[in-house]
Amino acid sequence: MSKYQFETVTVQVTADGVAHVQLNRPKKLNAFNDQLVADIGNIFRAIDVDHDIRVVVISGSGRMFTAGLDLAETSIQSLEVGDPARDIYKMRKHIKDFQDSFTAIEECSKPVIAAVHNACFGAGVDLITACDIRYCAKDSFFCVKEVDVGLAADVGSLQRLPKVIGNNSLVRELCLTGRNMYAKEALDCGLVNRVEDTQEAVLAEAFKTARLIATKSPVAILGTKHMLNHSRDHSVAEGLSYAVTWNSAMLKTEDIPLSIEAFVTKKPATYSKL
Amino acid sequence: MSKYQFETVTVQVTADGVAHVQLNRPKKLNAFNDQLVADIGNIFRAIDVDHDIRVVVISGSGRMFTAGLDLAETSIQSLEVGDPARDIYKMRKHIKDFQDSFTAIEECSKPVIAAVHNACFGAGVDLITACDIRYCAKDSFFCVKEVDVGLAADVGSLQRLPKVIGNNSLVRELCLTGRNMYAKEALDCGLVNRVEDTQEAVLAEAFKTARLIATKSPVAILGTKHMLNHSRDHSVAEGLSYAVTWNSAMLKTEDIPLSIEAFVTKKPATYSKL
Amino acid sequence: MSKYQFETVTVQVTADGVAHVQLNRPKKLNAFNDQLVADIGNIFRAIDVDHDIRVVVISGSGRMFTAGLDLAETSIQSLEVGDPARDIYKMRKHIKDFQDSFTAIEECSKPVIAAVHNACFGAGVDLITACDIRYCAKDSFFCVKEVDVGLAADVGSLQRLPKVIGNNSLVRELCLTGRNMYAKEALDCGLVNRVEDTQEAVLAEAFKTARLIATKSPVAILGTKHMLNHSRDHSVAEGLSYAVTWNSAMLKTEDIPLSIEAFVTKKPATYSKL
Amino acid sequence: MSKYQFETVTVQVTADGVAHVQLNRPKKLNAFNDQLVADIGNIFRAIDVDHDIRVVVISGSGRMFTAGLDLAETSIQSLEVGDPARDIYKMRKHIKDFQDSFTAIEECSKPVIAAVHNACFGAGVDLITACDIRYCAKDSFFCVKEVDVGLAADVGSLQRLPKVIGNNSLVRELCLTGRNMYAKEALDCGLVNRVEDTQEAVLAEAFKTARLIATKSPVAILGTKHMLNHSRDHSVAEGLSYAVTWNSAMLKTEDIPLSIEAFVTKKPATYSKL
Amino acid sequence: MSKYQFETVTVQVTADGVAHVQLNRPKKLNAFNDQLVADIGNIFRAIDVDHDIRVVVISGSGRMFTAGLDLAETSIQSLEVGDPARDIYKMRKHIKDFQDSFTAIEECSKPVIAAVHNACFGAGVDLITACDIRYCAKDSFFCVKEVDVGLAADVGSLQRLPKVIGNNSLVRELCLTGRNMYAKEALDCGLVNRVEDTQEAVLAEAFKTARLIATKSPVAILGTKHMLNHSRDHSVAEGLSYAVTWNSAMLKTEDIPLSIEAFVTKKPATYSKL
Amino acid sequence: MSKYQFETVTVQVTADGVAHVQLNRPKKLNAFNDQLVADIGNIFRAIDVDHDIRVVVISGSGRMFTAGLDLAETSIQSLEVGDPARDIYKMRKHIKDFQDSFTAIEECSKPVIAAVHNACFGAGVDLITACDIRYCAKDSFFCVKEVDVGLAADVGSLQRLPKVIGNNSLVRELCLTGRNMYAKEALDCGLVNRVEDTQEAVLAEAFKTARLIATKSPVAILGTKHMLNHSRDHSVAEGLSYAVTWNSAMLKTEDIPLSIEAFVTKKPATYSKL
Repeated sequence: MSKYQFETVTVQVTADGVAHVQLNRPKKLNAFNDQLVADIGNIFRAIDVDHDIRVVVISGSGRMFTAGLDLAETSIQSLEVGDPARDIYKMRKHIKDFQDSFTAIEECSKPVIAAVHNACFGAGVDLITACDIRYCAKDSFFCVKEVDVGLAADVGSLQRLPKVIGNNSLVRELCLTGRNMYAKEALDCGLVNRVEDTQEAVLAEAFKTARLIATKSPVAILGTKHMLNHSRDHSVAEGLSYAVTWNSAMLKTEDIPLSIEAFVTKKPATYSKL
Repeated sequence: MSKYQFETVTVQVTADGVAHVQLNRPKKLNAFNDQLVADIGNIFRAIDVDHDIRVVVISGSGRMFTAGLDLAETSIQSLEVGDPARDIYKMRKHIKDFQDSFTAIEECSKPVIAAVHNACFGAGVDLITACDIRYCAKDSFFCVKEVDVGLAADVGSLQRLPKVIGNNSLVRELCLTGRNMYAKEALDCGLVNRVEDTQEAVLAEAFKTARLIATKSPVAILGTKHMLNHSRDHSVAEGLSYAVTWNSAMLKTEDIPLSIEAFVTKKPATYSKL
Repeated sequence: MSKYQFETVTVQVTADGVAHVQLNRPKKLNAFNDQLVADIGNIFRAIDVDHDIRVVVISGSGRMFTAGLDLAETSIQSLEVGDPARDIYKMRKHIKDFQDSFTAIEECSKPVIAAVHNACFGAGVDLITACDIRYCAKDSFFCVKEVDVGLAADVGSLQRLPKVIGNNSLVRELCLTGRNMYAKEALDCGLVNRVEDTQEAVLAEAFKTARLIATKSPVAILGTKHMLNHSRDHSVAEGLSYAVTWNSAMLKTEDIPLSIEAFVTKKPATYSKL
Repeated sequence: MSKYQFETVTVQVTADGVAHVQLNRPKKLNAFNDQLVADIGNIFRAIDVDHDIRVVVISGSGRMFTAGLDLAETSIQSLEVGDPARDIYKMRKHIKDFQDSFTAIEECSKPVIAAVHNACFGAGVDLITACDIRYCAKDSFFCVKEVDVGLAADVGSLQRLPKVIGNNSLVRELCLTGRNMYAKEALDCGLVNRVEDTQEAVLAEAFKTARLIATKSPVAILGTKHMLNHSRDHSVAEGLSYAVTWNSAMLKTEDIPLSIEAFVTKKPATYSKL
Repeated sequence: MSKYQFETVTVQVTADGVAHVQLNRPKKLNAFNDQLVADIGNIFRAIDVDHDIRVVVISGSGRMFTAGLDLAETSIQSLEVGDPARDIYKMRKHIKDFQDSFTAIEECSKPVIAAVHNACFGAGVDLITACDIRYCAKDSFFCVKEVDVGLAADVGSLQRLPKVIGNNSLVRELCLTGRNMYAKEALDCGLVNRVEDTQEAVLAEAFKTARLIATKSPVAILGTKHMLNHSRDHSVAEGLSYAVTWNSAMLKTEDIPLSIEAFVTKKPATYSKL
Repeated sequence: MSKYQFETVTVQVTADGVAHVQLNRPKKLNAFNDQLVADIGNIFRAIDVDHDIRVVVISGSGRMFTAGLDLAETSIQSLEVGDPARDIYKMRKHIKDFQDSFTAIEECSKPVIAAVHNACFGAGVDLITACDIRYCAKDSFFCVKEVDVGLAADVGSLQRLPKVIGNNSLVRELCLTGRNMYAKEALDCGLVNRVEDTQEAVLAEAFKTARLIATKSPVAILGTKHMLNHSRDHSVAEGLSYAVTWNSAMLKTEDIPLSIEAFVTKKPATYSKL
């Protein structure tokens, strides 16, 4: 039995250090209610400091990755009709908590691979753009749906999507029309960098990549993700300067001689946990 | 008759809220003289606050989208030979005004779709990179021509092109050689995300997308463009923080229940104007 | 004989202003030892102010572009076992010097075209992402290898690679797995924008582009590279504002009338050196 | 008669190039209604390009500098009760226009000296912090009054005040309590750097400084204000880099030999206008 | 009895909405052990959302404000001698948690006034620079002590002190020498903006200011602190742009008509809680 | 004899690790010619890595600190009359080299104390604002003189002065008028934080502070200066994040137990060199 028990998310950790996080509201098509949003934040904050886990794969159970926001259960409009300023203040906290749950994926020190099948709607796009690597099945389709419920997306799509794919004309078309993007187009534009025939094949490839990463030095992997996050939001000069400060200490790690020996002897290294 | 009368630009507004802005110096191949530059700035500043208009399509009349800067009519070199510092001061204003006209497209609160056919030279590239979405005909070609008149582009191409396509090696080759890029390469690199056979077909697709966007909540569309502009120039954390402040007020809009009802009933919503 | 004499790098300058810089440790597969790193910094600092040179092509001599860091000759771990803080202070300088050598390519006022064949490992990727344009042979493969020696890359790959290609899912997969990327994928993702059959053909194309750039106004080329570097690390508004200040002075150059005359008469212009 | 005719502001230009701008609603204690706000923006945009003017002094006519926002005439709350999102959109423009009028002072290429007497309330503090230099009479008092009308200041005080004085504890006390600060404390904290006995004496000193600045090279003065504005909002490294680009062109000005000759001969130089 | 029960901090809330937070380890001279650091973070996170509280005063119980870090109880050096990289990773979390506790003061939506008496050593300076307003008794002295225990301060002094006082020569002297600064100098440089004879008088003044702030519109106070925090870390243009987005929604608050009525009638307004 | 031999600067290093750098062109009133500028850059780059030196005092020999730019020997206007763009390119390098010499003071890892007497003109202000701490004699006066030679200061005053003193009204008055500021005003505004009667007394105090700093942990001092430089140019959040990365490694230093022991035993610690 998994040591992690959440209401709407399952977590399985393999012996080789790969955690499989599954959105687990299949009857609700993994739609995001407040509980699912909270569970995602909590599981990734827990994984961040659980050094039995080296890499994470995230997928959806059941028919699809996710149908997006659960309009039935998540109130995006405050029901109270009070002073506008006070209502806004309450709403601030609500939006910020939602954002923080997905940002926990980005800030988690372990790489996260999204394995998508079938629909990835609305908040699902917000979620996967906070992951490091994205693979999908050929039946997948992606949709920045928020515009169709009368709001501008606010938990990450408008912030992260333009920074993970390099076709801004397409980004804006998707966000302004709310149209579906299918697997082929998602591959061409770089939202995903691998498409497989079935969900099983996507998971198999995601786990293969995950296990490969899990064999590497945890110090090197942690630093690589940390600096890629830093680079995205800084100039090259700032990024280089930060890398000096980060690496001048990290270069003393025992993982470097272990790695070099592994490289030379072609035998896998055994690294200690973080 | 259109309520907008400009010397070098025509504007037609359809009943469903789509404005068609056309560069209209066909005998001059829509080359940019001072008047055309000024007209573009003025029309987009007017559209920004004209809430009968929800989306804009911009195209060129006649043989091509644009031949670029009109070297015969636009003096890029001040003729006076005075004190260098004073000449520079005058030139500052000239360049800034030119930039501001194209930035008016980006700052216009309504989405702008560029529908390109045939040549899109020099300042034309500066213009279309300030648009949100770009489609083109298969006879199109694009050229960052400034290097061939002895200057570094200064009204947007060097600033925006690297942020709308994700192939920096290609961006630099184009800007440093001034070579043509044809429709296929423009599609592959993401400068445009749709190529059609003819100008008519490009316009038809541009209008189709425009009409689709015009059916959405104006509040959602305005916020989406506004935040996509903000995100491009800020870190993800800054972008998220801004989205909290923006949306915590916007979530009270009547467009959300209207949109959700439309979504559930599958009947189009009627939104009031901005 | 070349006026530039370096131990590990050769430099040939053609009459038309193209310098060919070659990594020249073929027996060591052009692996980076301290000398090669230093030579690269020094040659690009020299080229920056050598106005006989207008464009640079960089390639590797022998079997491959480069095998990456020379683990045998470059100590990435300080041998002394002293006070951790003092060791870190020494290591800071070492990493910074390494970074500065590659940054000299980016800061060199002349465009630099990388012509890659066969392997481009580890520090080789750091190097080519500091170049302006990248072409490769079809036998090429690229590898962000640092993770396999137990460290996070710190001389540019993690900072520059995400800013030269627009597929962040792929960037992270490459950096976290250390896997090879072959020519086809490098072309698709935009790391290179041209693949040729052989090393000779790559060099031929690189020189063709270089010679084309060398025929342009040196003032326009210098400004274009300078502003593309600036734009990458600033908002569009900052970039435009900087362009006003840069160009309001540069528009007085004699190269503009020379260029326009050449454009009109179809006869090549002769520009004076910088 | 002045060539500038505004409803709520008077402008007198002296022969030595000093403009005196006076808030001129004395019966209303120079309170800011929409007209006064608009007039201020327009006059400073005009002065920016009027090269007969080299320096500006701004003061208030009548009993005091200004009583702040004219609550009777300026609606800070939209009266319409429509869709919250649409109301907010309208309010955005209103606030932005107000901000832009005061920012016109900062962006005016000529130095602006505020000469304050008696009360400088609310929006008055927003205004004077957009000036370059501040002097006041000993009967002066300053008040960030917005908190007392139930709103956070939004036209500059919260943005500029902490950047013009170096006592953040005091800044926050003033902004959070809305208490008065008198001339002595304003001098001690550096909001003003000169206190005189009477309004006449303040104006005399302001004009003395203005005339002194007006005798200097207009190129040097323009560049100095421009770069001080730039420095405030950038890192030192960015500021230095911008100064290289600015000055490498400006150093060719005829004003430098003129200035040096004046310096050596002790005779005043005559500089041509911008 | 207070509804807040912490081990090392006491909290008393008055009927007029002022909370008094006291560091309460008098026998240990209020030195910071892990419990005190954690308690501070937790109390300010609680106050952030407790709308019975409008303003906070923070002081030290017993002989002094605080003796700084409790070297006996807080391990600043990890005892384990493991892999340097892994030790560093653990230390990262430790420092970040410490920082976050003090940043909770800055991020608390209610203004915080520090009332200092006698010694304010080391981490005490980090704490008070995260407050909004600082008052002290004439027996006070301040000391950036970290340099004397062999480390550079890392929980805020080096980041915040230069932004709350405007004398950088003094900031650097204090941080590099670890010398004491007494009340007079603290007043002159603006670290505090009020000095009183006794601790009682400091508290009396702090409460007087706190009660004054507590009578103001909570919407106005929240927005003022929020925007002052934002302004410190952004350019004026960014700050103004953010203020537009913030205030265009907040101007609909009922507090504005209430405030204006109070202003006109000279009778205090009663505002509802946040 | 000093191990450092420069043409225009003398350097004496005391046994306790304090270097005394003196501007040594007394017959030329220590005016800055190209040699002096170059020597300053070179000496501070040398001191940066000379770990016999822990702190630096810089002063002027002879009658005054410095008369500023040596107009007779330093050409600020290029004599060649060539293509404006090419002239500008050459001038860029000249200004950048000048800036880099003074920035070497800021980037030197050892604290630098300026001890000023009599005149500190023009480039002298650029120099001392790049130092950490400033003391002066009561006969001192400071002058941002550049405006009087027809140019905007470009080697640091306009960038650094507003960040070292907190009275922006005064900064702008000084920079726009070129007037003298005397010792009293320099003390009040915080340009210096100590005024002594004579040059000897200034030097005595500067050395006293320098020797005090020299007794501290070199690791703590290096980090403190490094982070103060970083903080000035970053937001508080960025500064804190950088401090985590810096200090999580530095906390392993042997200097911490040595410092704590010294603190407890009241006996001075002996730290090893960097």
